[in-house]
Amino acid sequence: MAEITLTFPDGKQQNFPATASVADVAKSISTSLGKKAIAGKLDDQLVDLTAPLAKNGKITIITAKDPEALQVLWNTATLTLGAALHALYPTMTFGEHALTEHGFYYDTDNSEKPVSEDDLDKINAAMAKFVKEDGKITREVVSKADALKTFANEPYKTSLLNACPDDDVVLYHLGDFVDFGEAGVLPDTKLLKVSKLLSVAGAYWQGKSSNQMLQRVYGTAFFNQKEMDADDQRRQEAHDRDHRVIGNKLDLFFVDPKVGAGLPYWMPKGATIRRTIERYIIDKEVSNGYQHVYTPVLMNLDAYKTSGHWDHYREDMFPPMDMGDGEQLELRPMNCPSHIQIYKHHIRSYRELPVRIAELGMMHRYEKSGALSGLQRVREMTLNDGHTFVTLDQIQDEFKKILQLMISVYADFNINDYSFRLSYRDPKNTEKYFNDDAMWNRAQTMLKGAMDDLGLDYVEAEGEAAFYGPKLDVQTKTAGGNEETLSTIQLDFMLPERFNLTYVGSDGEEHRPVMIHRGLVSTMERFVAYLTEIYKGAFPTWLAPVQAVIIPVKNELHADYAYGVRNRMLKAGLRVEVDERNEKMGYKIREAQTQKIPYALVIGDQELEQASISVRHYGEDKAVNMDTNMFVDALAAEVKNYSRTGKVSGTEEKVQKQLDKN
Amino acid sequence: MAEITLTFPDGKQQNFPATASVADVAKSISTSLGKKAIAGKLDDQLVDLTAPLAKNGKITIITAKDPEALQVLWNTATLTLGAALHALYPTMTFGEHALTEHGFYYDTDNSEKPVSEDDLDKINAAMAKFVKEDGKITREVVSKADALKTFANEPYKTSLLNACPDDDVVLYHLGDFVDFGEAGVLPDTKLLKVSKLLSVAGAYWQGKSSNQMLQRVYGTAFFNQKEMDADDQRRQEAHDRDHRVIGNKLDLFFVDPKVGAGLPYWMPKGATIRRTIERYIIDKEVSNGYQHVYTPVLMNLDAYKTSGHWDHYREDMFPPMDMGDGEQLELRPMNCPSHIQIYKHHIRSYRELPVRIAELGMMHRYEKSGALSGLQRVREMTLNDGHTFVTLDQIQDEFKKILQLMISVYADFNINDYSFRLSYRDPKNTEKYFNDDAMWNRAQTMLKGAMDDLGLDYVEAEGEAAFYGPKLDVQTKTAGGNEETLSTIQLDFMLPERFNLTYVGSDGEEHRPVMIHRGLVSTMERFVAYLTEIYKGAFPTWLAPVQAVIIPVKNELHADYAYGVRNRMLKAGLRVEVDERNEKMGYKIREAQTQKIPYALVIGDQELEQASISVRHYGEDKAVNMDTNMFVDALAAEVKNYSRTGKVSGTEEKVQKQLDKN
Repeated sequence: MAEITLTFPDGKQQNFPATASVADVAKSISTSLGKKAIAGKLDDQLVDLTAPLAKNGKITIITAKDPEALQVLWNTATLTLGAALHALYPTMTFGEHALTEHGFYYDTDNSEKPVSEDDLDKINAAMAKFVKEDGKITREVVSKADALKTFANEPYKTSLLNACPDDDVVLYHLGDFVDFGEAGVLPDTKLLKVSKLLSVAGAYWQGKSSNQMLQRVYGTAFFNQKEMDADDQRRQEAHDRDHRVIGNKLDLFFVDPKVGAGLPYWMPKGATIRRTIERYIIDKEVSNGYQHVYTPVLMNLDAYKTSGHWDHYREDMFPPMDMGDGEQLELRPMNCPSHIQIYKHHIRSYRELPVRIAELGMMHRYEKSGALSGLQRVREMTLNDGHTFVTLDQIQDEFKKILQLMISVYADFNINDYSFRLSYRDPKNTEKYFNDDAMWNRAQTMLKGAMDDLGLDYVEAEGEAAFYGPKLDVQTKTAGGNEETLSTIQLDFMLPERFNLTYVGSDGEEHRPVMIHRGLVSTMERFVAYLTEIYKGAFPTWLAPVQAVIIPVKNELHADYAYGVRNRMLKAGLRVEVDERNEKMGYKIREAQTQKIPYALVIGDQELEQASISVRHYGEDKAVNMDTNMFVDALAAEVKNYSRTGKVSGTEEKVQKQLDKN
Repeated sequence: MAEITLTFPDGKQQNFPATASVADVAKSISTSLGKKAIAGKLDDQLVDLTAPLAKNGKITIITAKDPEALQVLWNTATLTLGAALHALYPTMTFGEHALTEHGFYYDTDNSEKPVSEDDLDKINAAMAKFVKEDGKITREVVSKADALKTFANEPYKTSLLNACPDDDVVLYHLGDFVDFGEAGVLPDTKLLKVSKLLSVAGAYWQGKSSNQMLQRVYGTAFFNQKEMDADDQRRQEAHDRDHRVIGNKLDLFFVDPKVGAGLPYWMPKGATIRRTIERYIIDKEVSNGYQHVYTPVLMNLDAYKTSGHWDHYREDMFPPMDMGDGEQLELRPMNCPSHIQIYKHHIRSYRELPVRIAELGMMHRYEKSGALSGLQRVREMTLNDGHTFVTLDQIQDEFKKILQLMISVYADFNINDYSFRLSYRDPKNTEKYFNDDAMWNRAQTMLKGAMDDLGLDYVEAEGEAAFYGPKLDVQTKTAGGNEETLSTIQLDFMLPERFNLTYVGSDGEEHRPVMIHRGLVSTMERFVAYLTEIYKGAFPTWLAPVQAVIIPVKNELHADYAYGVRNRMLKAGLRVEVDERNEKMGYKIREAQTQKIPYALVIGDQELEQASISVRHYGEDKAVNMDTNMFVDALAAEVKNYSRTGKVSGTEEKVQKQLDKN
């Protein structure tokens, strides 16, 4: 075929020689497009700028303004990174490379001396050298067999190639370095002016923890400095909000893989936040008719065989322990079988239903070590769990009650940005689901009815339900902008069947209840990670580990009064400290801000005289003089009301007037 | 030797033929002693009444009045039980028998139909038949080889015999039944008039859970009915106080070996008691300078190798779990290594010390399934644990602070019957202990000094200290009269060494802190078991799962007001229920007593009119009419003050006057 027919985005068609490249096509349209083109798309496949197109199809010319442009730039940057590393470390071998949401990475193995963050400047410089010299990138198409010969000394590349189909392979050469990968690489490094290496992290070869640990070098690149600056800012913001960073700075928790991967230690301040949440949620649930219990974290493996977890969920479970009596004990991955034991312990009458069993239930799930992250992804977690056992008739009402409770809890934590998603079974594949048409139809109608009754917006997702029942997910956004499921209300027709749960109806006969699994605020670990990020560490007063710090201007003169104020506050149930260190007042105030303590209370001569305190709220420059008793009362009220502003609201003016009058 | 010389308790000596028995000796003293004698003691060894004494020694004649008499009676009863069982179940084989504090037991194996409690009447009757016929017990001395022949068809007896030295064996024959055992068996069943079989329980052969499960038949016997009646009463009292019995009756908890031996499920009411204790103890500790944390229940096995637990404590630990990354995780048997991680997470300065780390720390210990019992002996437990890290100088002061805290906690729970025991190292064997003489001497002196400063009585036990430091035990008595260690303060010189703990002293150098392990109220499981028994289930109001039940005289007339009172009480943070069932008032009041609810509040016409309630305190017959608001305030105050009387104290009169005036 000597000619090909290309179709442009506007529908026009034109013939070109089969050897024509994207560059040729762009130039044929206009000189300026010829200069701007950096790659193309043929039938939605990225193609290199200089590669012969060789077949008919829909063509798009890609310039730096197109969404795909960064992909091309990052592919080129990845190759340049490889070439720079190869030049610096001739014995280095290379693993996978890939693009991420915000840049690229390359896995490296340099057994003599693994790459570390200390090396990044040197590698950046080596990349810059290629860019300065407009390093030419040569494209070469070879057979898979020839490619395997080229990479004979690269065990990881060889393994990657072997996993590919037996088609031709495109090689890219830059300097002495050669690599292969997806199309969409620039013909030279000219455009790679604004690039940066970010970090180095360990990564197991192919993500399997039994494999060799490689060094993953992360980087990013942009077409101009302005874009890079914006990304720097985004990265800084994400870093500042990262609960691991804040958790370390505020001394909330730590994880030490040497004593246990994915097993967080809650330091006193983090523990105070968690304990406050736990007490809040238990009290809230108890006052809403839940019966809180404690059930063991271990259970006979047989229960998980009955529940089906062992068959379908084993990979996520911890290895069972052989107790030597023919008993196999398993760390529970879920609390449902435990709450079922509580339900089954008595004969239940329809008069008792709904029976609402709740617990802060500790569970263990096996996550790959590579997936673990701070409090966000852990192996030991404590779930704000609850199971309500209802008659079929009660589903709608109970579902509504759970929703109302959930919304009220969100309000107390000042969580406003969330949305609802109802998941139904796939009406075209009903045989995939628990087999009871009437039950499904009725339950789905009731869930929808409850949402409508409450006037809530929601999306409906057909085919997204679990095998055993429809559900509602509450989606929130993390500070990083990622969507996350914070709460779920899951109907379950199956477990009552498997565990043969019954209640005695008004007819004196045994009936099967429906089970509703629900979590209001997820696990303590995930929820505290989430809150840390949305609050940026500045917890509202009721959750703050230290609610106020008292700073005597001069220790020798004002410490006594400071301790008097502290004692009054302790008596009011507040968490307060006196900063009596031999440091300047300004330093102590800044330190209180750094620690994100809601109130810094300064006490000097004037305050001592007036029985007042100088109150500086977190994040504000101005201090306000307030009567001590009034402040303590206002603060106690703020804590009691889970105040969302994180500020003794409206009281300053009132109190100021009071003080002015005196 | 034709003659032997016997020495009587008064020191007198007399010669007898070597063939003389205790019966002969007794008769030689007086005819009445000859009639009363039931056994004897030769050089503190029990000897049978009719056996030839055959050697010189100190002789005592035992009659029914002597402390050893019951032992003889119970030995005889055990043999009679065996004979009765053998007569009823000819194919039954027999395991061990033994005496307990209150009777005897015999292990049996009847594979066709294991003995159950339903069979006890029948067995009792078969025993009575032997007694009625004055069954003669024949004593026979045989070689071990002959004994083994006699028991050829008794595998357990054979095994027991094989474990004996190769001496002659004394056999006892009753009817067709033959047995062997300790001396001290009556020559006939004449005296066995008042005996009783009590229960049947499973027991593994030789206590090993991998062995065959046998049926253990328990019984007791006395010389007269009066003693049996007293024992019945003791047993009834122990039963009534048994936390397992109360726990079941009040629906506090259950254990189901099928889902996990030794793993209790806390039902809502038990969970409420536990949660109340947990919050109380955390608040108390926090206000006393403890920093509460949460640490994982799992830890890398290496930490327990460092701590020494794996070497010395492995039998009590759960099997490790292989996580597949070369990581072995272990369910922690103790929290100390976890709190050491918290301490080590920061560089500590002498200014921070004492650092007090506390936690309600869940732990797992492997107990033999036969040793498990309710909440008392479990495999999963949550310890009120704390570790304080001090300088050597601070030991005395910190020890005193812990003691004061402990005493204050005991007072809040109304625990008054306890004593102190200080355990020192053995001064004659100092090489057995952690090697630092100066430290031991100083620490022991400080512990003693603290006790003396506080004016507390204590006993000193030399040689009772652990390898790694001296300690204080607080001994209480359980309701059953058994001594139990409720709290311990244990000094530890070793773990700081093993984990290389340091603090920076005022000299800028690193120093080694001393660790103090302390528990105030033991584990939640053991403490609730203990409290249940000392309170006999009638928990003081602040701990009671339901603090008051409101009983409308007529639901249709008084329920509205009842719910009004309830809501006011809920708002005051009280746990209250309305009993609106269609039952008579008297029934509901009795039910409130059965459930040991502190207050039953009856509401009828008069109360509705006066805005009052009729208050009946648990255990009292008389109800008192009280103003509702005053009652609620008084009750809230009672709860807040951990009132020890379990009664709105002193208010009745005051309130009654108030009501009389109106």
